[in-house]
Amino acid sequence: MDRADLTQSAGPNPVSARVSAALGSPIMYHYDPAFHEHFRDTERMVGEVFKTTSHEIILMQGEAILGLEAAARNLVDDGTPCLNIATGPFGKGFGYWLAGFGAELHEIETPYDEVVDAQAVDDYLTAHPEIKVVSVVHSETPSGTLNPVWDIGPIARKHGAVTIADVVSAYAGIELEAEKWQLDLLVAGPQKCLGGPPGMSLMAVSDQAWAAIEANPKAPRSSILSMLDWREKWHGEGAFPYTPSVSDLNGVHAALLELQDEGLENSIARHQRVFDATWAGVEAMGLTPFPVSKDIASACVTAIRVPDGLTDIQVRDHVRASYGVQISSGQGAGNLVRIGHLGATARPMYAVAGLAALGRGLIDLGASVDVGAGVAAAMSSLSDRAG
Amino acid sequence: MDRADLTQSAGPNPVSARVSAALGSPIMYHYDPAFHEHFRDTERMVGEVFKTTSHEIILMQGEAILGLEAAARNLVDDGTPCLNIATGPFGKGFGYWLAGFGAELHEIETPYDEVVDAQAVDDYLTAHPEIKVVSVVHSETPSGTLNPVWDIGPIARKHGAVTIADVVSAYAGIELEAEKWQLDLLVAGPQKCLGGPPGMSLMAVSDQAWAAIEANPKAPRSSILSMLDWREKWHGEGAFPYTPSVSDLNGVHAALLELQDEGLENSIARHQRVFDATWAGVEAMGLTPFPVSKDIASACVTAIRVPDGLTDIQVRDHVRASYGVQISSGQGAGNLVRIGHLGATARPMYAVAGLAALGRGLIDLGASVDVGAGVAAAMSSLSDRAG
Amino acid sequence: MDRADLTQSAGPNPVSARVSAALGSPIMYHYDPAFHEHFRDTERMVGEVFKTTSHEIILMQGEAILGLEAAARNLVDDGTPCLNIATGPFGKGFGYWLAGFGAELHEIETPYDEVVDAQAVDDYLTAHPEIKVVSVVHSETPSGTLNPVWDIGPIARKHGAVTIADVVSAYAGIELEAEKWQLDLLVAGPQKCLGGPPGMSLMAVSDQAWAAIEANPKAPRSSILSMLDWREKWHGEGAFPYTPSVSDLNGVHAALLELQDEGLENSIARHQRVFDATWAGVEAMGLTPFPVSKDIASACVTAIRVPDGLTDIQVRDHVRASYGVQISSGQGAGNLVRIGHLGATARPMYAVAGLAALGRGLIDLGASVDVGAGVAAAMSSLSDRAG
Amino acid sequence: MDRADLTQSAGPNPVSARVSAALGSPIMYHYDPAFHEHFRDTERMVGEVFKTTSHEIILMQGEAILGLEAAARNLVDDGTPCLNIATGPFGKGFGYWLAGFGAELHEIETPYDEVVDAQAVDDYLTAHPEIKVVSVVHSETPSGTLNPVWDIGPIARKHGAVTIADVVSAYAGIELEAEKWQLDLLVAGPQKCLGGPPGMSLMAVSDQAWAAIEANPKAPRSSILSMLDWREKWHGEGAFPYTPSVSDLNGVHAALLELQDEGLENSIARHQRVFDATWAGVEAMGLTPFPVSKDIASACVTAIRVPDGLTDIQVRDHVRASYGVQISSGQGAGNLVRIGHLGATARPMYAVAGLAALGRGLIDLGASVDVGAGVAAAMSSLSDRAG
Repeated sequence: MDRADLTQSAGPNPVSARVSAALGSPIMYHYDPAFHEHFRDTERMVGEVFKTTSHEIILMQGEAILGLEAAARNLVDDGTPCLNIATGPFGKGFGYWLAGFGAELHEIETPYDEVVDAQAVDDYLTAHPEIKVVSVVHSETPSGTLNPVWDIGPIARKHGAVTIADVVSAYAGIELEAEKWQLDLLVAGPQKCLGGPPGMSLMAVSDQAWAAIEANPKAPRSSILSMLDWREKWHGEGAFPYTPSVSDLNGVHAALLELQDEGLENSIARHQRVFDATWAGVEAMGLTPFPVSKDIASACVTAIRVPDGLTDIQVRDHVRASYGVQISSGQGAGNLVRIGHLGATARPMYAVAGLAALGRGLIDLGASVDVGAGVAAAMSSLSDRAG
Repeated sequence: MDRADLTQSAGPNPVSARVSAALGSPIMYHYDPAFHEHFRDTERMVGEVFKTTSHEIILMQGEAILGLEAAARNLVDDGTPCLNIATGPFGKGFGYWLAGFGAELHEIETPYDEVVDAQAVDDYLTAHPEIKVVSVVHSETPSGTLNPVWDIGPIARKHGAVTIADVVSAYAGIELEAEKWQLDLLVAGPQKCLGGPPGMSLMAVSDQAWAAIEANPKAPRSSILSMLDWREKWHGEGAFPYTPSVSDLNGVHAALLELQDEGLENSIARHQRVFDATWAGVEAMGLTPFPVSKDIASACVTAIRVPDGLTDIQVRDHVRASYGVQISSGQGAGNLVRIGHLGATARPMYAVAGLAALGRGLIDLGASVDVGAGVAAAMSSLSDRAG
Repeated sequence: MDRADLTQSAGPNPVSARVSAALGSPIMYHYDPAFHEHFRDTERMVGEVFKTTSHEIILMQGEAILGLEAAARNLVDDGTPCLNIATGPFGKGFGYWLAGFGAELHEIETPYDEVVDAQAVDDYLTAHPEIKVVSVVHSETPSGTLNPVWDIGPIARKHGAVTIADVVSAYAGIELEAEKWQLDLLVAGPQKCLGGPPGMSLMAVSDQAWAAIEANPKAPRSSILSMLDWREKWHGEGAFPYTPSVSDLNGVHAALLELQDEGLENSIARHQRVFDATWAGVEAMGLTPFPVSKDIASACVTAIRVPDGLTDIQVRDHVRASYGVQISSGQGAGNLVRIGHLGATARPMYAVAGLAALGRGLIDLGASVDVGAGVAAAMSSLSDRAG
Repeated sequence: MDRADLTQSAGPNPVSARVSAALGSPIMYHYDPAFHEHFRDTERMVGEVFKTTSHEIILMQGEAILGLEAAARNLVDDGTPCLNIATGPFGKGFGYWLAGFGAELHEIETPYDEVVDAQAVDDYLTAHPEIKVVSVVHSETPSGTLNPVWDIGPIARKHGAVTIADVVSAYAGIELEAEKWQLDLLVAGPQKCLGGPPGMSLMAVSDQAWAAIEANPKAPRSSILSMLDWREKWHGEGAFPYTPSVSDLNGVHAALLELQDEGLENSIARHQRVFDATWAGVEAMGLTPFPVSKDIASACVTAIRVPDGLTDIQVRDHVRASYGVQISSGQGAGNLVRIGHLGATARPMYAVAGLAALGRGLIDLGASVDVGAGVAAAMSSLSDRAG
């Protein structure tokens, strides 16, 4: 089957030529000293993008789900009181993990087209001073919303709780300040705004998080889920706990170098410019974005309600088959489709192409959409901030 | 400087992942038996795309200009009477060569937004039975027109003249029948509709053409321009006249394999679908295509007149700088810009993105253009023939 | 730091141009239908190399350690009686896992330069009919030995025990018959004889293994370690439990296609030819292989005792620094170095280069070695079976 | 047919991973401003490696044969008195060109296993003050010898003649000083010691050479062979005379960057170290190098006489078939084979592998060779200058 001409999914997406080349570069033996240098160099750059010098960087060797599961398992003992913030499918799922690993689960929930109110978190923690862990998703990719982790970090710190922040899709494309925002255990993915391959978990761990992990008798050891193994073996002894994924590391390393050349602020501005154009186009087309307002939306994906009578899968598949554009369906957040603009695919005209294909696809399926108005509005938005 | 996000030029353009990989594959020694097999395999496939079994295939090791210059030099002796058909910059330039190499030059010229009338060629040859060579450009890339070489081949053959056909940009994306159309010396480029790298001339040579070359005392020998060297050394002795361009050959070979997988007819249909949508979009936007009518237009590039008061270079550069899309200027054919759709870049939504960027760019520069109507019309055209 | 000129490690090693190209090919969205086709195609080919049609193939998305840990966790409940065969570091480590996950651990141990006697396994199982799981390593990469899993599978089956076989380094380069040898849960790595990237666990699971897993209340769920999630979500519903490692899959897929073109039997013969030459060279050089005899040696790595007074790390690092060849140290098996010949690096002259560099490196460090005799013997061995 | 495992030919040879990646990177439109920047950047770096700031750099778009033919055609008018130095097949061939293009040909010849004596050139020019052009090959790749162009340049300048220097295979791996040695028109190839792809001619042109070209009425115009077109169009107007070979340029650019990182002096030292080891190995094996003495040998290739009773083709093909190593035959210089060590393949252990394969191959064919002694001597030579 032919590949899509253009992938504008919520990730993973095609990477740049430079990252592709790195993925295809020779695989080194993991005890080659050049590989060790490469690995440490990558850790250093990962920390810079997290905007921290005080966290320890751990690169776990599996897709971000590994880092997230590890975060939960390493911090949760039987009966640990945890507050989980569930404003979307990933937040909700994290709560199942916490409970499954033995936590005493507290939860603040919202409809999936909204985000949490930081004051509510503060109030909850005041009312439940025993809570030791707060977990929150920064950018909820399935629903296209953005929780105020910049407020939640300091609130949790004030109440003495350790914060787990799922920043998987925001990393490298949306403002993120691990240190300033006082977040303790952050898990990012390279396959979203960084424009790298999936297959690795980029983690930043504060002293507070390490203290909690070390105090947890259930923290995994001799396991792919062990953060302590990485700390002691690799950072302590210079030996890997197991064979790292060399080609993925090559790709992540190149993506970080490329980001360094572009500048983090420029990457963030690029994502924002593309997002603004897409959002403007969606509204002008007569469609409805999924988040209740633009100011709670995440800039890495535009989530759009599917018109009545159609399903997200149907729309996604039709657009792929007729116009060669791969977008994403709702992935549990609702009857919505998503145009992703993250990493190498966050480019103005790709988003416009995605919009046009989506709009026309909806017409084909019987919906009433003004493709022309949508594209004109998107182009107008782009023109305002043209290079 | 950053690369363009999207190249929709008249070529060379980015190639597919498969061709890129081949270009980056290990460079073989040119006397490695595996390379010889590779070279012969490529020649065979080149012939299939030319739709001939009776021509000999020569792969000269330089961009198509080498093959074209060689065609002229190999066939022209002092005083050889030649009829050159000049309907665009490439046709016009070919006449300068013929004259420069000593030919007695006859020429049929048209304005660059028109093509030749086959009857006029027949009449001319009837009036000038001494003419030995007829030269014609199939697809005039600078002006986006298509000459009726299918008629000119049989006419020339009837009058005993050998035909040189510049099919550089049509090869592999527009209907072409070397044998059926009785064309004698065809020169194609891999970097256009085939989606390969520049750097090679793909030539098909009929028995009639060889006879004329062999009878020509000025036909080059011991030269990069010698076709006879390739015939005698490579086809005769299995030795190359000089080091071939191994990485280019790797790329051309992969492009041919990919075409084989797609099917030549499907490639032609794909180019046509994208061209039809682009043309419809241009007209709906309120712009004027360069060719006087669609039925003389070449499907590999859409040439568009630049609105009064603007220049092609200004428009091309603004679209590149503001929207990251690289289109082409007029290259001597007039004040026009071109959206190319050839090879790996002949994809429906790339053309739509190119259209939208061009339309908005013109608005930015003060022209009156309806971007929305243009994109809607293009999408409607695509929808009619959606996969 | 410069990369090694030549990597002859125990893996991961550089891959072929074709696999490199695939690793660098565009990353697809994991719900792109083309990716689903790609994934299923890979599973099918993985099964063929395991030589089975009756096992279910599970591709877990992390280096083989993930598959091995998953195998142990999915089969072990509190108090499950397990027999672990420990003839090298990997076998020994597996026992720690079994015990750590709650098993009642039985163990047959040998010195690391020997392998297990199948009769001893039969006797032990006769004496302990309660044993439900037998775990064994096929090719012990750190020590270069090969356990008779072909005998152990049928013995375990006869006694009603389920077999876990760590075939990580043997897969695709050494004879392996999952079905015929009655092995139940096999875990292979793509980064060894297959010549793929690390980052994935290739697993084959028999009905007997699934029955045991389903009967185990401790079998992981909603975890990166869950085999049942893969079975139910991906094989059942066509949805991935989490984002798979797309670029690794691209690489594994290409490595399997390449193996298909070479032929599995030819790959096995190639590994054997290179191993035989290396072993002959080591002996002729005056060095001592680590395994007590050649007939218990694994063909994918030649393990060599380091002469007295030197250490494996010192030798490895000197050979890398002086001659640009990366070999492996003993990795816990003893004071030995290893020349790996697996996958794309299992090539006759690479092994000879590795031998020459090792031999001269030892001389540089003060040992008495006859490099010339070693290389001459290796070449003589190769000559006997020259293509 | 399978590719060779190891290519140690006289070029083209496999390139580094970095150059491969560049060859496979996206092909830019040749009027993309990023490509123009790329082209100029490449010209600048080419000049640095020539060690000149006073020559103008011209990158002609075809394999070095194009640059060499252009050099001859651009400088030779009917009756131009030229002195050609013929010490090998390339020098000899250059004389045929000069004569063919109308020159009054003078020649100094030597047997192909020797080089020219600079004093003889001085004497000849003294005796023939009318000579306007002196042509000489620096490294004669077919015979493995090195002419003293460092002396010939100043001698020719003293006598008022313009020098054409074929430095195709020496460039970037053997000492070369265009300015200091007063050479006027140099032609280099990227596919030899630079480790790039074939497909381009790297030329440096002095003011003296331009003056002679401009005074030559036969200097080509509107031709792929025109140096003046490149000067006027590209350097003058910023427009290419024809479509350049974009992918080749990508490769050459990357090879130059890589050389810059290594350092030109280090590259020269690397080629010398590998050559010294190979030469030592050849002699210790009991074979005879082709050049009459090592001090006239070129460091980029080791030419070896084929033992009586065997032919170079037979030996080359047997080594390829039996041991997967591709070496070169004599290419017109005599019954000799060549182990190339140029560019990315000039690595110590590759040369040793080449030696061992050649030595054993000769034994297989009935010759008497001491492979062990040869490899031991080569390793000893390498050890003396180990990193």
